[in-house]
Amino acid sequence: MIVVMKAHCDAKDVERVLTFLENHGLSGHPSSGVERTVIGVLGGVGPSGTPGSIGGINPSLGEALESLPSVESVLRVSKPYKLASREFHPEDTTVESEKQLMTTASAVRSEGAVILRGGAFKPSTSPYGFRGMGEQGLKLLSKARSEFGMAVITEVMTPTDVDLVCEYADILQIGTRNMQNYMLLDEVGRTNKPVVLKRGMSATIEEWLLAAEYILAGGNRNVILCERGIRTFEKVTRNTMDISAIPLIKHLSHLPIISDPSQGTGRRDLVTPMSLASIAAGTDGLLIEVHPNPDEALKDGAQSLTIQQFQALMPQIQSVVHAIGRAVVTK
Amino acid sequence: MIVVMKAHCDAKDVERVLTFLENHGLSGHPSSGVERTVIGVLGGVGPSGTPGSIGGINPSLGEALESLPSVESVLRVSKPYKLASREFHPEDTTVESEKQLMTTASAVRSEGAVILRGGAFKPSTSPYGFRGMGEQGLKLLSKARSEFGMAVITEVMTPTDVDLVCEYADILQIGTRNMQNYMLLDEVGRTNKPVVLKRGMSATIEEWLLAAEYILAGGNRNVILCERGIRTFEKVTRNTMDISAIPLIKHLSHLPIISDPSQGTGRRDLVTPMSLASIAAGTDGLLIEVHPNPDEALKDGAQSLTIQQFQALMPQIQSVVHAIGRAVVTK
Amino acid sequence: MIVVMKAHCDAKDVERVLTFLENHGLSGHPSSGVERTVIGVLGGVGPSGTPGSIGGINPSLGEALESLPSVESVLRVSKPYKLASREFHPEDTTVESEKQLMTTASAVRSEGAVILRGGAFKPSTSPYGFRGMGEQGLKLLSKARSEFGMAVITEVMTPTDVDLVCEYADILQIGTRNMQNYMLLDEVGRTNKPVVLKRGMSATIEEWLLAAEYILAGGNRNVILCERGIRTFEKVTRNTMDISAIPLIKHLSHLPIISDPSQGTGRRDLVTPMSLASIAAGTDGLLIEVHPNPDEALKDGAQSLTIQQFQALMPQIQSVVHAIGRAVVTK
Amino acid sequence: MIVVMKAHCDAKDVERVLTFLENHGLSGHPSSGVERTVIGVLGGVGPSGTPGSIGGINPSLGEALESLPSVESVLRVSKPYKLASREFHPEDTTVESEKQLMTTASAVRSEGAVILRGGAFKPSTSPYGFRGMGEQGLKLLSKARSEFGMAVITEVMTPTDVDLVCEYADILQIGTRNMQNYMLLDEVGRTNKPVVLKRGMSATIEEWLLAAEYILAGGNRNVILCERGIRTFEKVTRNTMDISAIPLIKHLSHLPIISDPSQGTGRRDLVTPMSLASIAAGTDGLLIEVHPNPDEALKDGAQSLTIQQFQALMPQIQSVVHAIGRAVVTK
Repeated sequence: MIVVMKAHCDAKDVERVLTFLENHGLSGHPSSGVERTVIGVLGGVGPSGTPGSIGGINPSLGEALESLPSVESVLRVSKPYKLASREFHPEDTTVESEKQLMTTASAVRSEGAVILRGGAFKPSTSPYGFRGMGEQGLKLLSKARSEFGMAVITEVMTPTDVDLVCEYADILQIGTRNMQNYMLLDEVGRTNKPVVLKRGMSATIEEWLLAAEYILAGGNRNVILCERGIRTFEKVTRNTMDISAIPLIKHLSHLPIISDPSQGTGRRDLVTPMSLASIAAGTDGLLIEVHPNPDEALKDGAQSLTIQQFQALMPQIQSVVHAIGRAVVTK
Repeated sequence: MIVVMKAHCDAKDVERVLTFLENHGLSGHPSSGVERTVIGVLGGVGPSGTPGSIGGINPSLGEALESLPSVESVLRVSKPYKLASREFHPEDTTVESEKQLMTTASAVRSEGAVILRGGAFKPSTSPYGFRGMGEQGLKLLSKARSEFGMAVITEVMTPTDVDLVCEYADILQIGTRNMQNYMLLDEVGRTNKPVVLKRGMSATIEEWLLAAEYILAGGNRNVILCERGIRTFEKVTRNTMDISAIPLIKHLSHLPIISDPSQGTGRRDLVTPMSLASIAAGTDGLLIEVHPNPDEALKDGAQSLTIQQFQALMPQIQSVVHAIGRAVVTK
Repeated sequence: MIVVMKAHCDAKDVERVLTFLENHGLSGHPSSGVERTVIGVLGGVGPSGTPGSIGGINPSLGEALESLPSVESVLRVSKPYKLASREFHPEDTTVESEKQLMTTASAVRSEGAVILRGGAFKPSTSPYGFRGMGEQGLKLLSKARSEFGMAVITEVMTPTDVDLVCEYADILQIGTRNMQNYMLLDEVGRTNKPVVLKRGMSATIEEWLLAAEYILAGGNRNVILCERGIRTFEKVTRNTMDISAIPLIKHLSHLPIISDPSQGTGRRDLVTPMSLASIAAGTDGLLIEVHPNPDEALKDGAQSLTIQQFQALMPQIQSVVHAIGRAVVTK
Repeated sequence: MIVVMKAHCDAKDVERVLTFLENHGLSGHPSSGVERTVIGVLGGVGPSGTPGSIGGINPSLGEALESLPSVESVLRVSKPYKLASREFHPEDTTVESEKQLMTTASAVRSEGAVILRGGAFKPSTSPYGFRGMGEQGLKLLSKARSEFGMAVITEVMTPTDVDLVCEYADILQIGTRNMQNYMLLDEVGRTNKPVVLKRGMSATIEEWLLAAEYILAGGNRNVILCERGIRTFEKVTRNTMDISAIPLIKHLSHLPIISDPSQGTGRRDLVTPMSLASIAAGTDGLLIEVHPNPDEALKDGAQSLTIQQFQALMPQIQSVVHAIGRAVVTK
């Protein structure tokens, strides 16, 4: 069961709902997003998988909750599926902070990284997940740019945000879920900013190149393709990184291609070998997630390197880059 | 090679380019879209698949073409990949017409169909493909509605179009490529129109339900899920229709689910058996593409039934619906 | 950790190992296969997923175990992977019994089933799983045949078993993992028994028909294809049943095709809707797993119907079969 | 249409059938396998894809052919599917020869290769394809071994061949289609030869390790895993090579892992970048197909390097191997 609070409720309202839940033998886990707070409700559940019951929670309780003045609605989630318990990660409301961004930027810059990616608008599979900081995030990125002399790249998710994002970012990113969002491709095709076009999670090479063609056909010739793993039957990795896409794209197209081993595998322990494999296969760049404390990240912590791991990776990258007769650009 | 004409060029300009091409031993195939005309160039090509040659066309010819006043740009497409020849179907510019829509609507209505889907905004994998008629298409659909007493459903592809589409349509459709276009889900979640949410082409059941949750969380509780096939390794069908999704969704959710055997298979000869299979598995509705002359359709002809085939299907549908103890709503 | 006992050890030897384990704070779960007993060892494990530890078990303990006279070897299974805990299901050693077979056969026969499948040789993903009863199982099947007047179908897994299985069975089955075991296809092609050829778990329609062609080319024209689900990215079902394969095979080939919704979905709750969907799509037969007490089955219990569920399914089958103008053969 | 000749017919019999076909306006393409000759029949076919016709060939003609004394059977292949034309490659009967083997072995040995793989028993998707030379092939491999001082690896496809293959080979290979052929795994588990276990074309990492466990549990601890690409939706490559499997296996298991970029991609132009990527990701060996004249190979020519390409690859391999701090073993 998920309790959705009204838009402008305050901490006291949330407290009141938590007390109400507690009095009924349930525990509430509030999660404050940009727009509102939702409360995941656990406890009072029968044996796992019991069909027919609504999370083991008395239906009349839901109605009682819905009648509280600060509650907008109550989402009842049917058992077997357990949408709430599987997808609703009740974590403490830590904002991804300015300090964290600056620490990371400073550290990776000093190791030779020249471009900084940060997510101001973030896609989240669940509507209750973290969706980014919006314009405030763009400003933070912009500040990091001037402080450390890095170019800034960030995702744009919808046509109406393109102008805003262009004001702050040096490079735009189109995410995997939007690879075939044609209106968005049209819109970034009208700008003159370089665009990183992530491969759709089950896009063929041909569909990917055709998506790039939308941007090119709009007049923007600065498209950078980014391999980020495809969806297969394998379950130990989040995606299966298609390293062969790198030489294939080189054969089929004149566009540069970079690799994202963090998304491509979803596992920190695979980022280093898959970075080196990407280089050996001819990648033109790497997109690596780094976090000062990955285990506290609001999103994608499992696939982020620590700063120390990133420092250890850089000399290995240098070594393989040289072995294939290329050089690393660090300024 | 694809010649992209300038936005406001006229028939004479196109004619001039065609003559120029003919004089150089090539044939041009113009295709007029909503915004501009592009000309696919064939001929002068060596044996299929010859590596190294650029479509067998003299590079200096491309430059000559680009210098013509009505030509905006010339896209050279490298062989092996043959982007142009595989994806650019140079068909005669037949507009999907009012007459065709009315003929189809009248025919399917008299067989018992109660909802009419037409595409005003159409996603196309290639930027040079048919992208729909826009508002003019919406008006046609609206006219068909009043004439035949059918509800109208049409796709909306971007948040800024939602209001416009709501003016004309009774039901909104979110297409497979936009299942995780969260800004669009948010936007349709703010309307009160029923929304058909197509399954993403490689979306898990869980991701699909979470996409529905975006719309529900926005306040719109009228979500209809639509199974339309998933992407697998199989090549004889366009998609693999996941019939098991129908009973699974019934177990996991209270939302209605319908099936799209036309998209789900991509083959006209499979539409009838897969319609019947969907019903036997518990579908709440069928979305079937019908065209008076599928072989002349601008898009998806191979998967459209003729009117005669649709007429033959309806009694079979009735028969299986009754066999499982349900009834067909025809008004 | 898995303790593999020597081939001819007896119950006392096993008991001694269990006591040894208990004295060290661990619990042993013996599992007796046809050839030997293995003991899964649980307990003494740190928090799930702790990297670096070897199942939380003192390495010297393994050596001590290996020195016991009745122990052949000790398999240490590294954490993260947790091969043992995930794949080793320590269930009580219940033999799939004669009584269970006869009860099921009698019950399904009286509902109209005319063919009985039982597994004498069973493929198991893990070497420590249940691998069937061998010739003893064949004899049981044969007995059920004469008692209830049913034809018998059973799997053959290797060329040297073909003669033996032919002695007892009326119909041979080639399992999904052996669809491209060409020596086996050659061998059954030399018999005159009908062969059910299951689709490989990621075989294309074309590969499947070519596998059939091996048997046909050997001179055996009695091939029956069986759709049993394909492997996709979806995780809520064991496989994705490709219902469209049924009409496709009908178009491409003169061979009969049957469906296996038990394997095809892996979920008991989907067997009924997917049986009806298969019929509506044109299947020539159904292969349905039934077990008097599925929760106690050694293998595949989650996908077996109870006898009551099978009884409830039969009239629904009759109804849909009639709806599409066909009839059920029940003798 | 495919004419299957009787087992012991001679060249004259074949000639007679060809003449018969010619007299009826058709062309015959004989293909002599180890056991018999089959003749693919082309010509007299209506427009591609015409449904209903049986290859455009008069049915009575088939009967006439079947009555010829040297003809065993005539396989009529239904149109749309065109099994014959797509899968029956009527190539001249060139035996993969001793000279070709010795030339290749000598060349790769002098570049530093230390193990030679050759296929004596070959799996072929179609029953009419090349299935290897059998024991004659094993003898050739053995000769190459003594001449060039290389270890020899070859595939074993069925339990009864294990002893024969062990006589000649130093290392056994289990092919992708047999990864879950448990009787075969049991059998090689009883030998003391190292076994290269190819990943099944849609096997998860876990299933692959469990297949290895069959061999290990049989007592043979010398298992070498081989990544050879998995099946995905992508169509430009034969398989999608899962480079991440290399570091994953290193984490989960103590077994060595090698890579097969020839099978893994199916494209010669990808073998070099994917070899280097495999090394950077930590592979313990490479399995690369080399052919003096790939375009004349009976099988897999498209993915074989020429000797010159192999010579160019070796220094690149050396360079990347050194970059990651390892060394190449060349004797």
